[in-house]
Amino acid sequence: MTNAPQAARIIVTGGTFDKRYDAIKGELTFTETHLPAMLAEARVNLPLATDIRLLIDSLQMTDAHRQEVLKACRESPERSLVVVHGTDTMVQTARVVGEARLDKTIVFTGAMVPYSVQGSDATFNLGFALAAALTLPAGAYVAMNARIFSWDDVEKDNAEGVFRALSASKRG
Amino acid sequence: MTNAPQAARIIVTGGTFDKRYDAIKGELTFTETHLPAMLAEARVNLPLATDIRLLIDSLQMTDAHRQEVLKACRESPERSLVVVHGTDTMVQTARVVGEARLDKTIVFTGAMVPYSVQGSDATFNLGFALAAALTLPAGAYVAMNARIFSWDDVEKDNAEGVFRALSASKRG
Amino acid sequence: MTNAPQAARIIVTGGTFDKRYDAIKGELTFTETHLPAMLAEARVNLPLATDIRLLIDSLQMTDAHRQEVLKACRESPERSLVVVHGTDTMVQTARVVGEARLDKTIVFTGAMVPYSVQGSDATFNLGFALAAALTLPAGAYVAMNARIFSWDDVEKDNAEGVFRALSASKRG
Amino acid sequence: MTNAPQAARIIVTGGTFDKRYDAIKGELTFTETHLPAMLAEARVNLPLATDIRLLIDSLQMTDAHRQEVLKACRESPERSLVVVHGTDTMVQTARVVGEARLDKTIVFTGAMVPYSVQGSDATFNLGFALAAALTLPAGAYVAMNARIFSWDDVEKDNAEGVFRALSASKRG
Repeated sequence: MTNAPQAARIIVTGGTFDKRYDAIKGELTFTETHLPAMLAEARVNLPLATDIRLLIDSLQMTDAHRQEVLKACRESPERSLVVVHGTDTMVQTARVVGEARLDKTIVFTGAMVPYSVQGSDATFNLGFALAAALTLPAGAYVAMNARIFSWDDVEKDNAEGVFRALSASKRG
Repeated sequence: MTNAPQAARIIVTGGTFDKRYDAIKGELTFTETHLPAMLAEARVNLPLATDIRLLIDSLQMTDAHRQEVLKACRESPERSLVVVHGTDTMVQTARVVGEARLDKTIVFTGAMVPYSVQGSDATFNLGFALAAALTLPAGAYVAMNARIFSWDDVEKDNAEGVFRALSASKRG
Repeated sequence: MTNAPQAARIIVTGGTFDKRYDAIKGELTFTETHLPAMLAEARVNLPLATDIRLLIDSLQMTDAHRQEVLKACRESPERSLVVVHGTDTMVQTARVVGEARLDKTIVFTGAMVPYSVQGSDATFNLGFALAAALTLPAGAYVAMNARIFSWDDVEKDNAEGVFRALSASKRG
Repeated sequence: MTNAPQAARIIVTGGTFDKRYDAIKGELTFTETHLPAMLAEARVNLPLATDIRLLIDSLQMTDAHRQEVLKACRESPERSLVVVHGTDTMVQTARVVGEARLDKTIVFTGAMVPYSVQGSDATFNLGFALAAALTLPAGAYVAMNARIFSWDDVEKDNAEGVFRALSASKRG
């Protein structure tokens, strides 16, 4: 809320969010991120760095990849970070980053339906995660389904395709 | 970040955000809001009330309309509110609501391009504003262009089609 | 159906088909045609010339403009032509071209909803008109609503937003 | 071109054309056809029957399936038919139908990119094939890439993802 807009960074790792249809192979693959197109459409007017770190399915993500994401977060000069990540292992990577307790606000998001497919949640999630990164206290979070979860209290319900608080399911 | 998700409310007043093309008239008009379709697409899993209060161009908005918006904010049981509003007079309505100093977080947003038109910023803005409403301290805000402005420090630059801090232009 | 694909030409004159939303003015205007993007999307593999002759609303079309369209048809080396035209005066221009009795197949089409707006009929109509231009005998036609009309037996029903045969309404 | 519009029928068999993204499985599958939505969007005003015969990937299509398609064509009271089919074995099914030498115009089409994915050729191809079915003499045809091929002179070039005349490649 100061006069100078707060700078932010978006770190892309791939995931469903960024899959595109390959007409020859007849399947969804990675070629390049949709992020620049999405930011232009959103008419973003913020000092915003983008770091295309990885473009992989999050089921392929190894410990080395997660260290790479942590490194990207640690070295970022901005204090408001969004990490675009596949939903299948988003919680694991958020844990690696959360345990490092960086003095930054790091919000993980992704999509259940690719940006390039009708009915995608990618654009909404990107907007939601970016606002969360600009407003929340330092920490690592997962932002999906219009909800914000702390990295240590979230799980993906694969059957329903939604994220939930661990504490909520324990109560149930 | 508690276990129970925070409830929110979206108050719709119309604006470019919700305009649709009328094929017979050959122009953009209002018929119904896109909000339910947008929330389904976003896979929102939050207790979220929607209040379709008005469906008008913000250039048509009178003082009585603004009092109606203020009333909708005041009477809302939720403390996190998004007001979808035309951009042309968004700042005026935010001022009316801001001066009432309600103990709620009220975030105004809208769109420069209708949801129903290619290249719309509506979905991004909705996600961004909703996260802001869930995380910011009580107050009235304008959230556009991936930036958050206090109601008393914002103007629309009509020539550029972007929102700016008043204090920023005074400095310049 | 010979081995060598038949060459065709698309003559663009504007109309609802090609309108785009101007975010600053808040209205639908003309900037450039969507035709090249549409043809790429359609994976067209035909010798296809495109002639961006005009980019105007068909209500603005004068006799001089119609002579310009006729000239473009007459001078085209291809014998299969599609003319993209606003729907409001499509029938008048088709009449000017039809009365010239060129030895070419000339199919007028357009859109009730711009290509850039959700729910557009532009892409379907372009595909439909192009096939009609490749298969029909020489003459001038209007192709809208998945129907093909001879230039001298068609009218636009403005209340319903559909094209009908004149002879059909006389019968009724 | 008579006063009464010519009736047509669209026989759906599935294929890439009709694939939808399943957010839980994270892959493209079949649930229901997009055809009614596409026809509404196209503002079709033609007596048009639709027959959802199959919803399968054309690589799964057996001889029994092809006989089923032939039966659907044979029993159709309309003389202008479009068959929506996967591209991988479209040529084989067109051959089965073509060899039956029905006294109808039967045009096979499909899509390289699903209707539900950005940059799809489905809508263009549907419009193109329907006009071809309304205008060509009796016979079986493949209509893809804005070209019309006789059933006995067409192959799919899988590397390029386009359809070509067999005679063209023999010449080369």
